[in-house]
Amino acid sequence: MEKKENISELREKLQEIYHLGSALQVLDWDSQVFMPPKGAAPRAATISNLSGILHEKFISKEFAALLKKAKANLDGKKMNDEESAIVRELWREYERQKKLPLAFVKEMSQACSEGHNVWIKAREKSDFKIFLPVLKKIVALKRKEAELVGFKKSPYDALLDTYEPYATSEDISMIFEDLKNFLVPFLKKIAKAKGKVDPNIIQGNFPTEQQKQFDVEVAKKIGFDFEAGRLDTSAHPFSTGFHPNDVRLTTRYRKHDLFDSFFGVIHETGHGLYNQGLSVEHFGTPLSEAISHGIHESQSRMWENNVARSKNFWKYFFPKLQSQFPEPFAKISFNDFYRAINNVRPSLIRVEADEVTYSLHIILRFEIEKELIEGSIEVEDLPKIWNAKMKEYLGIEVPNDAAGVLQDVHWSGGAIGYFPSYTLGNLYAAQFFNAAKRDLIDLEKEIAAGEFGHLREWLRQKIHIHGKMYSADGLVREVTGEPLTSQYFIDYLKEKYSGIYKL
Amino acid sequence: MEKKENISELREKLQEIYHLGSALQVLDWDSQVFMPPKGAAPRAATISNLSGILHEKFISKEFAALLKKAKANLDGKKMNDEESAIVRELWREYERQKKLPLAFVKEMSQACSEGHNVWIKAREKSDFKIFLPVLKKIVALKRKEAELVGFKKSPYDALLDTYEPYATSEDISMIFEDLKNFLVPFLKKIAKAKGKVDPNIIQGNFPTEQQKQFDVEVAKKIGFDFEAGRLDTSAHPFSTGFHPNDVRLTTRYRKHDLFDSFFGVIHETGHGLYNQGLSVEHFGTPLSEAISHGIHESQSRMWENNVARSKNFWKYFFPKLQSQFPEPFAKISFNDFYRAINNVRPSLIRVEADEVTYSLHIILRFEIEKELIEGSIEVEDLPKIWNAKMKEYLGIEVPNDAAGVLQDVHWSGGAIGYFPSYTLGNLYAAQFFNAAKRDLIDLEKEIAAGEFGHLREWLRQKIHIHGKMYSADGLVREVTGEPLTSQYFIDYLKEKYSGIYKL
Repeated sequence: MEKKENISELREKLQEIYHLGSALQVLDWDSQVFMPPKGAAPRAATISNLSGILHEKFISKEFAALLKKAKANLDGKKMNDEESAIVRELWREYERQKKLPLAFVKEMSQACSEGHNVWIKAREKSDFKIFLPVLKKIVALKRKEAELVGFKKSPYDALLDTYEPYATSEDISMIFEDLKNFLVPFLKKIAKAKGKVDPNIIQGNFPTEQQKQFDVEVAKKIGFDFEAGRLDTSAHPFSTGFHPNDVRLTTRYRKHDLFDSFFGVIHETGHGLYNQGLSVEHFGTPLSEAISHGIHESQSRMWENNVARSKNFWKYFFPKLQSQFPEPFAKISFNDFYRAINNVRPSLIRVEADEVTYSLHIILRFEIEKELIEGSIEVEDLPKIWNAKMKEYLGIEVPNDAAGVLQDVHWSGGAIGYFPSYTLGNLYAAQFFNAAKRDLIDLEKEIAAGEFGHLREWLRQKIHIHGKMYSADGLVREVTGEPLTSQYFIDYLKEKYSGIYKL
Repeated sequence: MEKKENISELREKLQEIYHLGSALQVLDWDSQVFMPPKGAAPRAATISNLSGILHEKFISKEFAALLKKAKANLDGKKMNDEESAIVRELWREYERQKKLPLAFVKEMSQACSEGHNVWIKAREKSDFKIFLPVLKKIVALKRKEAELVGFKKSPYDALLDTYEPYATSEDISMIFEDLKNFLVPFLKKIAKAKGKVDPNIIQGNFPTEQQKQFDVEVAKKIGFDFEAGRLDTSAHPFSTGFHPNDVRLTTRYRKHDLFDSFFGVIHETGHGLYNQGLSVEHFGTPLSEAISHGIHESQSRMWENNVARSKNFWKYFFPKLQSQFPEPFAKISFNDFYRAINNVRPSLIRVEADEVTYSLHIILRFEIEKELIEGSIEVEDLPKIWNAKMKEYLGIEVPNDAAGVLQDVHWSGGAIGYFPSYTLGNLYAAQFFNAAKRDLIDLEKEIAAGEFGHLREWLRQKIHIHGKMYSADGLVREVTGEPLTSQYFIDYLKEKYSGIYKL
């Protein structure tokens, strides 16, 4: 009895904390989607106030006492697996947060808020020197954060932990090294290939309303529940979940390129399916939270790339696309279309990169930020190092800072340690998709028939519903039978692009 | 020095409380405007959690100590007028809240939540008996609330105080009695008048997008700042403000009647101008809060009725309406149009009532709910009493409960004491508008030229910017030089409708 009561009291207190979290998500969503411009300053104050209340509640003596009591029971193995997982994850988070003094948290928050504003100006003027002083301050604070939190081998791991709990940069380095060793020569082979692709044939003139209609139709078809979510427009596409029954996606529309919004919506739908698939029963505990950014990204990448950029997918949807947008698609052959949406070309901007080059953008950033936090490079050197790596990995010259080291928002807001998640997502996606094909023998046929129910249910049961029950590593082993490897992603790229480019 | 520090510490704590309030407003706005249906249950939990935190903070020992210290200084007259007003209003609110035990607040909240759901069903089936048990519970709790809060003459005053601080039902009864004594015979005179009005000539087929464009154009023209607010669509039109720089309005569109959304938007814009006109400097204190529901309603009513249903207003806008909606307006004379938008007809539903009959709907509700709380009538008797008063005041038979006693949402959510605010709004509006005409000698000419800047600025400086510095009574005396009276509203109706109906 004692033990049951303990966790139930803890869960009750947790509800308050998680509902504050949901409220913060709503405030953030509104600020990106609908808020009028003058609302920005008061909204920032409201968000900062609520964040403070949430932090206070989480590290309060009252909550700490409940958590410590539960932790003692956990160590004494008096709990079931679910209770253990809840306490384990809360304890991890509590340990981290209580190591950060309030004054430090506020200083960091202020530096990042300033950093973001300065970064916008620096990017506008394409001048890294404008960004330099504030980025130096942010990096110094992040190094301090790593010291405060503590780490085993690299201080970078202490930051990585926010996005990829339990992961180490040593493991990631090894996997990324394998991937890089494959990608760089593979990309050169594609560049020299005889099979050329014309990406311009799929450009056209597409009214926003018609684009949205097509996007929503496909999102519904792959299983997004619009009774428990919606799709809106924002400058930077994103997705968020207030609760499994209230999940919001956004996109943006480009008149001449419907695939910008289309693949964007499929990507966000992948995130949305994860959020809708989380446990309603366990809402308000880590068991209804995503495992890691990398696992979250695996869900968006799988639907966007492994599914929606595949031949099978378009066997079903290409005729629909042709009938809804006869101009230009009616006169394009299936094969030319398929090649056009899978065109590979080294480019400057990460968010516009294709499946093959994308991970090289990430590996570059991972290598740089790791060394930056470890202190083997300094902030002043970033443009030079960035440009050299772009030349080495992608073979292109960076013409200016805006198209180079200043392109991403992440560092300006203190999100150092975040980038690896994107490529981990690609790797997890390939490995999971391989396991799904093993478990669901008709999967390829189903996709070609526009049937996604089995895959969606498989993902829900294997991944979504568990929340943080497993670590990312534990989940991958549980679902695929082996630890994460770059091999499935490499095999996938090899097979797909050897066909497209006739290598 | 001591005194300055005291109020500044209090103000800091207050910020937290008011930002929680803003967050709650955002959550409520989203729930009415964009939230997907399945989000309702988790949203209710999030709102309830945040409300609990807000209540806790407001009655916390820490806050109480700051407030008591400030109150002591206030009594010792050591503060300036602004500080005094802040402390005076906070103390009022604190005194009220601390008299309500948490268990009672929760019981009330649960009864009202249940009440709302049962009311929806009862109205659907048009059967008061379904609503009866839960309404009895709510009324019993509201009587209890009045006892807990305390009152001088009528327990109803303790409830009225939530919506109309410092007002008494005795004063309101006298004013309403005068008004009723004018309205009932005046309405009979209109019914028998020779000058008939055809309200159907302004019906048509109006695409939503065009309606919205016209509405927004007018809202901008009268001064709503769309950089600090927006207009969306919701089932029940409303307005809310998270901060003077972020004010949200909603409306709904009816294809055949553009005036439903048009006057709705002007009404909400009036509320919105009040919210945008509140003090940014004093945000997070009662000095940036509306005085009362009645004063708020005076702002919406004045713009909707005294301004936008006037001849002068349409001198400017009717040609624009004709050019944007040639069908049917091109062929309608100005005079017929003006009479059509001011058609008077006794009807069953309050929210569809015209300027003359509207207040009779309110007086009926005020009389009933006052007696209900005082215990001189019982919940069982409501339909009979309702129907008798409808016959007496408006001369019409109520065919069923849905079109009668079940039509309003208010009682189902425990909002007893709210109704008087609507008619007080009409009375304040007439009295303020009269003062505005006195102060701004060219006002009528300006309105006829589509110029609203002086009126808006007058309202801002005379009313909006002060927040709760004055009581409603204090404000009316300050702005108009006399206490509230029904005379200005009566004179306004007499003059306007004698013209329209050739009485």
